[in-house]
Amino acid sequence: MKIALAQINVTIGDFENNLLKIKSFVNKALDANADLIVFPELTVTGYPPRDFLEFEDFIEKSADTLEQLKPLSEKIGILVGLPVINPEIEGKDLFNAAVLLYNGKEIFRQYKTLLPTYDIFDEARYFEPARAWHTVAFKDQRLAVTVCEDLWNLGNENPLYTVNPMDKLMKENPTLIINLSASPFDYQHAKERIKVLKANVKAYGIPIVYVNYAGAQTDLIFDGGSLVMDNRGIIRTELPFFREYFEVFDTEQFNRAVKDSERPKPKIPLIRQALITGIRDYFGKIGLKKTILGLSGGLDSAVTAVLATEALGQENVLALLMPSLYSSERSVADAVALAKNLGIRHQIVSITNPFARILSELQPFFNGLPDDVTEENIQPRIRMIYLMAFANKFGYVLLNTSNKSELAVGYGTLYGDLTGGLSVLGDLYKTEVYELARYINRKKEIIPQNIIDKPPSAELRPGQKDTDTLPPYDILDPILKLYIEQRKSPAEIIDAGYNASLVRRVLKMVNRNEFKRYQTAPVLRVSPKAFGMGRRMPIVAKYLE
Amino acid sequence: MKIALAQINVTIGDFENNLLKIKSFVNKALDANADLIVFPELTVTGYPPRDFLEFEDFIEKSADTLEQLKPLSEKIGILVGLPVINPEIEGKDLFNAAVLLYNGKEIFRQYKTLLPTYDIFDEARYFEPARAWHTVAFKDQRLAVTVCEDLWNLGNENPLYTVNPMDKLMKENPTLIINLSASPFDYQHAKERIKVLKANVKAYGIPIVYVNYAGAQTDLIFDGGSLVMDNRGIIRTELPFFREYFEVFDTEQFNRAVKDSERPKPKIPLIRQALITGIRDYFGKIGLKKTILGLSGGLDSAVTAVLATEALGQENVLALLMPSLYSSERSVADAVALAKNLGIRHQIVSITNPFARILSELQPFFNGLPDDVTEENIQPRIRMIYLMAFANKFGYVLLNTSNKSELAVGYGTLYGDLTGGLSVLGDLYKTEVYELARYINRKKEIIPQNIIDKPPSAELRPGQKDTDTLPPYDILDPILKLYIEQRKSPAEIIDAGYNASLVRRVLKMVNRNEFKRYQTAPVLRVSPKAFGMGRRMPIVAKYLE
Repeated sequence: MKIALAQINVTIGDFENNLLKIKSFVNKALDANADLIVFPELTVTGYPPRDFLEFEDFIEKSADTLEQLKPLSEKIGILVGLPVINPEIEGKDLFNAAVLLYNGKEIFRQYKTLLPTYDIFDEARYFEPARAWHTVAFKDQRLAVTVCEDLWNLGNENPLYTVNPMDKLMKENPTLIINLSASPFDYQHAKERIKVLKANVKAYGIPIVYVNYAGAQTDLIFDGGSLVMDNRGIIRTELPFFREYFEVFDTEQFNRAVKDSERPKPKIPLIRQALITGIRDYFGKIGLKKTILGLSGGLDSAVTAVLATEALGQENVLALLMPSLYSSERSVADAVALAKNLGIRHQIVSITNPFARILSELQPFFNGLPDDVTEENIQPRIRMIYLMAFANKFGYVLLNTSNKSELAVGYGTLYGDLTGGLSVLGDLYKTEVYELARYINRKKEIIPQNIIDKPPSAELRPGQKDTDTLPPYDILDPILKLYIEQRKSPAEIIDAGYNASLVRRVLKMVNRNEFKRYQTAPVLRVSPKAFGMGRRMPIVAKYLE
Repeated sequence: MKIALAQINVTIGDFENNLLKIKSFVNKALDANADLIVFPELTVTGYPPRDFLEFEDFIEKSADTLEQLKPLSEKIGILVGLPVINPEIEGKDLFNAAVLLYNGKEIFRQYKTLLPTYDIFDEARYFEPARAWHTVAFKDQRLAVTVCEDLWNLGNENPLYTVNPMDKLMKENPTLIINLSASPFDYQHAKERIKVLKANVKAYGIPIVYVNYAGAQTDLIFDGGSLVMDNRGIIRTELPFFREYFEVFDTEQFNRAVKDSERPKPKIPLIRQALITGIRDYFGKIGLKKTILGLSGGLDSAVTAVLATEALGQENVLALLMPSLYSSERSVADAVALAKNLGIRHQIVSITNPFARILSELQPFFNGLPDDVTEENIQPRIRMIYLMAFANKFGYVLLNTSNKSELAVGYGTLYGDLTGGLSVLGDLYKTEVYELARYINRKKEIIPQNIIDKPPSAELRPGQKDTDTLPPYDILDPILKLYIEQRKSPAEIIDAGYNASLVRRVLKMVNRNEFKRYQTAPVLRVSPKAFGMGRRMPIVAKYLE
């Protein structure tokens, strides 16, 4: 049997265009004489549709889309995902379904059993789990159809669920597992996925066809990597990462012996591709092309500018240099050099005069009080006004350049440098931003070396350095990672070799600054634990404070 | 049996002080010769603890708190809620438990079965549902111990769950239902709660003791209203709303016939009390006292100022008047009159000069282009700089004054008037803000009548009115409510009598402005569907656009 893997990229709720895209892939599959085409989870709506699932009209439009696909299935099996109504009065109103169309009609459906409800996932919010499990005979195979998480309760030490739908499906002796997925990227995910699929092959002894999305939905980036694994756990094909892709696999090939064709998965290059995908799809899917960002001469804005240029093209990136009295000449020169290296436009507009003007308006009220963080914060807020003015006047979208270390400890100005429609680096610790910068420069100097070499500074007062306020990033970042990613206790982090009072101070900063993170842009997720929907913390609380 | 209802207010994660508070209530109960004291759900952690539940240290601290309560239970039953570890490897790691202490030790526990996972609730994210159900004999009663949602699958037409834990518990013939609750306020909730409890009494024929929190946790406000309902559905006592409270109820009283003592539940007065509670606890629990807000002479900032003054005291509220060229003299006069009526301090600082300065800096780049929303947005952003400068310099917290109608359609400036640590009116449509203003003025004119009477305007360009951009609020608000609260389709809203193109325009505005709402402050929740954690929408999407 020839199976087409449709690694598509759709837009959430864009039923009309999603249908067109599905149709174009079905036509490719027909041209290739495929017997069956497999799409990702919730194909017709995009993933995650979130609370749009609570709108009856949204569910009706999903059903309409399925109706419109039926005529295309005369000569090919079409396996798509969509939300469908639960006919029972009791329980959640929906199932997360995989539906097989053939001969112009629906011939089979299987609902998702394991509903991920952790990190960025909210499926128990919407869906009732499957209560019945069946396979379907199609051509020369008997298919065990599963949806994403359904295969993920194997291969880890702390299973989240008390059932395995494959255990039920095996009673009907399937010959092939099909998995419709919507599995967001993190830098460990592609490896993790293969581990999990191998655990399934080992447990059930039959091959797997796994189809995932490519492309980004706001903060979530889907890496594709759709694959076919044979019953010995050998990867027969692994589709490219982060790209829409179409490939036909003939199950006859299982009879031939081949080498494993797994692709390499190096962390920093994957992250780079993921972030470019995230920027590209954010703009593409809202129908805008042009971005603006503040270029300070520092590392974070430099790396963001590089990624934005790769994603959107040099003609679509405007860098604004907004020096103050405290900006070094070298910073401006570094920023200009970067803009030239990238071939992007830049404009220079000083904040000195508005800063003086605002200080003088406030002087009657502040008279006599020493300068403090108040005066520091005014500067990035004036920069925000400039950036948003350009954005409003010319239709740019502002990109945020904050990194995860800063967001974690609140080292940034709310409504100042923490603004923007999308946070590009908000899931990279500062030390990872350095790694990414060095990788960007691996062949030639795109980011001026001085930007990488100089000590980080916000340049909001004379001679300021990040280390005036924060520990060095090679100490801060491991502490943050132990707390945020691994959820270790203060005692455990101290035991790992960090200074006790520093650890307590850092953890307190993380918890106290939840209010800032609550109001910042969606963060492109590249780690297993990003700020945003995947990490839900109370704002008013006293834990570890 | 004498049962103490402990309607307490705790702080999330503040184990030490929560323990002290629990102890003080236990001591009151001992003084009153109570046999049993009942606390709300997840007593020791506060509700909702959100992802702190994923930290082992947090769970250990919960267990420690329980240990420290045991010695107090020598002569009184203590029924508290806390998260406990699921000993099974499979399934979620925690249960949401009610634990009964007596004679210095744990004598009984029952886990929560129905885990709310909708709107603001995420319990399936953390907890495994109960798999066993038992009652406990205590003194002259047999108790069916339930946790909040466990009783909520009755009395509605579309039950969310396929089981009712009370059906299981009834097999052991309990004489009394106890319910530990954490049930957030909305203006329909107190009525809804009584309806649900009556449905339980009707189904199971035994009385109910229901104990809820009082006080706010960031955006969620708990209204208390703990109550005892007898087996005929008559309310024997209903505790006051929004206040910590302690009352002892003797089950002997069930033998006497009395009239129903349900308290009245008028919408606008309840909302007023809820918002005051929300402000008071936000500040109290972060340990700050003083607020600043911009007073424009418009309705929203006026109502916010009134509520802030009631919550924090007139000495703790600073009103900043920040007129521009486009502010009418009448607006300033109205704002000053309001500040005088409230007895709060006000300062006047014009934005005219910084506005001119910033425009002149931008002029070389904008030269020749007509004024548009760019110039409008700069003004509230300068106001934000002033407000945050005062906040930073003197330790004020900025209150946001936006209403739900504005947030819904994006009629507000991101990083301008949409800023603040807490949104007070963000869950009230403009027409409800009018109702609240009239209620505030019911006895005397606190809000100058002109503020209520004049047509709403952002005053960002000459002669501007809200109706230049938006339909009148008495048309806009019902459309928004049909879409946001009732999730109606465009066709259904048009069928309800609204202009088709207007409906499409409004719904598109709602969906397109998700990016603004994502970056605004937590909104005090007073309706069944508030912006924030209870309404999770994709930012990049194309539905109804």
